[in-house]
Amino acid sequence: MKKPSSYLDALISELSALPGIGNKSAGRIAFHILKISDADAERLAKTIVEIKKNIRTCNVCGGLSDGNTCLICSDIKRDNKTICVVAEARELLAIEATGEYNGGYHVLGGLISPLDGIGPDELNIGKLVTRISESEINEIILALNPTVEGDATSLYIGRLLGGSSVKITRIARGLPVGSDIEYADSATLIKSIENRVEF
Amino acid sequence: MKKPSSYLDALISELSALPGIGNKSAGRIAFHILKISDADAERLAKTIVEIKKNIRTCNVCGGLSDGNTCLICSDIKRDNKTICVVAEARELLAIEATGEYNGGYHVLGGLISPLDGIGPDELNIGKLVTRISESEINEIILALNPTVEGDATSLYIGRLLGGSSVKITRIARGLPVGSDIEYADSATLIKSIENRVEF
Repeated sequence: MKKPSSYLDALISELSALPGIGNKSAGRIAFHILKISDADAERLAKTIVEIKKNIRTCNVCGGLSDGNTCLICSDIKRDNKTICVVAEARELLAIEATGEYNGGYHVLGGLISPLDGIGPDELNIGKLVTRISESEINEIILALNPTVEGDATSLYIGRLLGGSSVKITRIARGLPVGSDIEYADSATLIKSIENRVEF
Repeated sequence: MKKPSSYLDALISELSALPGIGNKSAGRIAFHILKISDADAERLAKTIVEIKKNIRTCNVCGGLSDGNTCLICSDIKRDNKTICVVAEARELLAIEATGEYNGGYHVLGGLISPLDGIGPDELNIGKLVTRISESEINEIILALNPTVEGDATSLYIGRLLGGSSVKITRIARGLPVGSDIEYADSATLIKSIENRVEF
């Protein structure tokens, strides 16, 4: 395939390197960029450069931040006595997208995975312990993936904080909303029966 | 939903304005951009700005070009006696993607559509006539969408060039490869029978 313009070629190849963007989508986006105003295209380019230059790690939760403290940790309207522990910043966004959670977060930066050489010391766990000892925290919600690595990390944190007075919970396992019991895997079905709640 | 960083917020909102990119894909791409090197992100941003600044219209075919003449029109290895007429530059790319066509192109910049106020004068048709009269062209392949607008435009160009010695063809209509006769629409099925070829 020959492209009539090297600029178009360069843009399509850059775009198709992005996750979830194939060659056809890249072409479609490239033609969209050709159509929008110069100002709009420059703003798009600027946001890409700006985020790389300016993004920081929040020194409270360890998530993404504009300055020293992120917009969630510095929001006085939020319940800062509850901390939801997530592995990655994008999981924080998924929980925020529900619009139902009003507490704070703590981002570990990964999960314990001995095979990948990631132990507790590689994760942002020490600061979680400090947060709990220094401020008044009522509940820690462990929102880690229901995988071997997620479970190992939950177990580690659970034991580490076992002596403190803080309540430790873990997000529920069970049937996804809208799913079908007939097609659920056994492990999920067992969890959903074990963790049944009063109706 | 609250974003922990305004830079992240800005990038996700810019990305989700692109065609085919929803909020989830935008988030995924934004986190990808956070992960890649500064140099890679700057190169992506630069290609967006560069294409807007530098892209031209080829003064031979009317398609996209780096300079006065596009990389296809200036390629001496291509058969410049055959011209494939397309409505838009992105259709040119679709044909190039097949890797089977080795002739030149002519990009009309749209289709005749009286309802949208687009007549032959709004399209790049005059230059096609000039190309045919000034250089040795053997065949014009009309590769316009099989729609009312596409047919009207094909008909117009066909009549306009009727007097010249150039051979005028139109791309075939019939069953898409891999499709099912049972589910084909009647219009397509009729065309596929009418335009049957020797086996």
